[in-house]
Amino acid sequence: MNDQLEQIKAQSKIAPPTGGRGDSSVSVFAPATVANVVCGFDVLGFAVDAPGDEVVMRVTGKPGITISKITGDNGRLPMDPAKNTVSVSVKHYLESIGRTDLGLDIELHKKMPIGSGLGSSSASTVAGLFAAKTLLNDQRDVAQLLPFAMKGEEMACGHGHADNVAPALMGGFVLIRSYEPLDVVRLPHPKDLWCAIVFPDVDVPTREARQIIRNKINMKDAVTQWGNVAGLVSGLFMNDIDLIGRSMKDVLVEPVRSMLIPGFYQMRQMAMELGAVSFGISGSGPSVFAFTKDEQTAHAVIQKLQAFLSGMKIHSESYVSTVNDTGPRVL
Amino acid sequence: MNDQLEQIKAQSKIAPPTGGRGDSSVSVFAPATVANVVCGFDVLGFAVDAPGDEVVMRVTGKPGITISKITGDNGRLPMDPAKNTVSVSVKHYLESIGRTDLGLDIELHKKMPIGSGLGSSSASTVAGLFAAKTLLNDQRDVAQLLPFAMKGEEMACGHGHADNVAPALMGGFVLIRSYEPLDVVRLPHPKDLWCAIVFPDVDVPTREARQIIRNKINMKDAVTQWGNVAGLVSGLFMNDIDLIGRSMKDVLVEPVRSMLIPGFYQMRQMAMELGAVSFGISGSGPSVFAFTKDEQTAHAVIQKLQAFLSGMKIHSESYVSTVNDTGPRVL
Repeated sequence: MNDQLEQIKAQSKIAPPTGGRGDSSVSVFAPATVANVVCGFDVLGFAVDAPGDEVVMRVTGKPGITISKITGDNGRLPMDPAKNTVSVSVKHYLESIGRTDLGLDIELHKKMPIGSGLGSSSASTVAGLFAAKTLLNDQRDVAQLLPFAMKGEEMACGHGHADNVAPALMGGFVLIRSYEPLDVVRLPHPKDLWCAIVFPDVDVPTREARQIIRNKINMKDAVTQWGNVAGLVSGLFMNDIDLIGRSMKDVLVEPVRSMLIPGFYQMRQMAMELGAVSFGISGSGPSVFAFTKDEQTAHAVIQKLQAFLSGMKIHSESYVSTVNDTGPRVL
Repeated sequence: MNDQLEQIKAQSKIAPPTGGRGDSSVSVFAPATVANVVCGFDVLGFAVDAPGDEVVMRVTGKPGITISKITGDNGRLPMDPAKNTVSVSVKHYLESIGRTDLGLDIELHKKMPIGSGLGSSSASTVAGLFAAKTLLNDQRDVAQLLPFAMKGEEMACGHGHADNVAPALMGGFVLIRSYEPLDVVRLPHPKDLWCAIVFPDVDVPTREARQIIRNKINMKDAVTQWGNVAGLVSGLFMNDIDLIGRSMKDVLVEPVRSMLIPGFYQMRQMAMELGAVSFGISGSGPSVFAFTKDEQTAHAVIQKLQAFLSGMKIHSESYVSTVNDTGPRVL
């Protein structure tokens, strides 16, 4: 890896100020993600095809990272490069490969809601890191960017969790087996697993959603939970959607967090009655998601849930896709 | 299943007093099992080729279950059919298929230590149930016997856990995803995974080993644990012995139970230095086991550990085998 790093440094020095790829700018999309996946609190996550964020990155003549534009955030995100998760992550990355001499400008186009429980900051961060990696012609596996992406998460959420950034970066279903040392495992999944996401536009800050979780739990509940985590992982490997559905039960976090989501259990019942395989909270909420066996059922679920939320005068957004196996991509 | 049950009843009524198979006696071996598998407390277990127990079952002319002989138990097991796990389980099974008119005599030959943490009662129970199933020509999947085997466990250990009986019955690696409803999943495993077992002959009653486990645990530790459970299951599916090894860490139960096993951490160090992939407590102990990548290393481990225990004046037994995929078998 050190050899590879030297090579990147050498290559990327050939042609400044255009980075190493020869291009002086790049546009990148990175996907939204569903963390926890009901029973796998803090260890499981997967990427979806939509929504996601876009970053346009340009090599500038002057060392340092700038942010020239942010759209779609209603002014909520900091333009200060020292405070924005994207620029902070990219800075850590450039430092790690000894390219602090480089000048990069960032345009961030938010194409997904902030504070939705869909890994909004992760999508931006991963888009930024992948753009930098592309400009620098860094040929290493994207998973190498994970520690830098986690730096961004640490700033955004107050903790360096990886269950959003890892799937946003690597695509597909990802298990974070361990944080120290960091050990991530990419899991397979049934190709015909559809995901219906509904974001009810109510405020559930990640920090608060985390604070209401109990620190002390019953061993008995923990056993139930890891039986289900093991069942979910088995179902993913066995292509057994019914086992996946049976395993997606959360006796520890959902009972608390669901209180922050209006009509959560009614929405679950509606989704299950329409034929969903499972239903739960995406990340720390308020977005909810259902797995279904086909696209049609996924659309039926979002239609029903959005009508229900609308009846409660709650605006919502919805997304339907299969699991995204690509991760970030150049546009 | 009800149709199948009617068929069994009908078939098994054709030729009493010889059961349904036409044979009037059968000898069955059932394997010892390693429950918990370090991180999978109460949800994971696997079967080994050795040791195991044997049951000889004979059809008698008189309704009811008798126990005519028990060997290898040093007089520790009850001869009373109302108190012996084997006869109790078989009785539940006969009742479930409406064959209480049948007379069965049991000879139990203990070929493994009692109270060893190797699923001693499960091996006996499964041998008895499989013998009855064989005599009755019950063609259903062996997994159907699980509820009856759990009745035996309930009597033997004070709780109806399935992490020993399920692998003893089904062979291989088994996940008990859920108890209510009972949901078991057979997991694959690398063919070249060797298991070295050492039983230090010290007294660790299952009930006490269970009582010292804390009821309240930290959420943080639980997350670490289910990350590892998910890693272990992934490693089994991926044939990745290193991932299996990295995942076999227990931050919740082992730190407490290891106190009941003299020299536990020294033995771990010895095993790991000899090249073991993992090391831990089998079930509730005092038996310990190591996974290795080959037979030679497994033998080196048991040799070293037995010499160490011998130095502490502790008698021990040892066993080396791969994972047993067969479960019970007619001898």
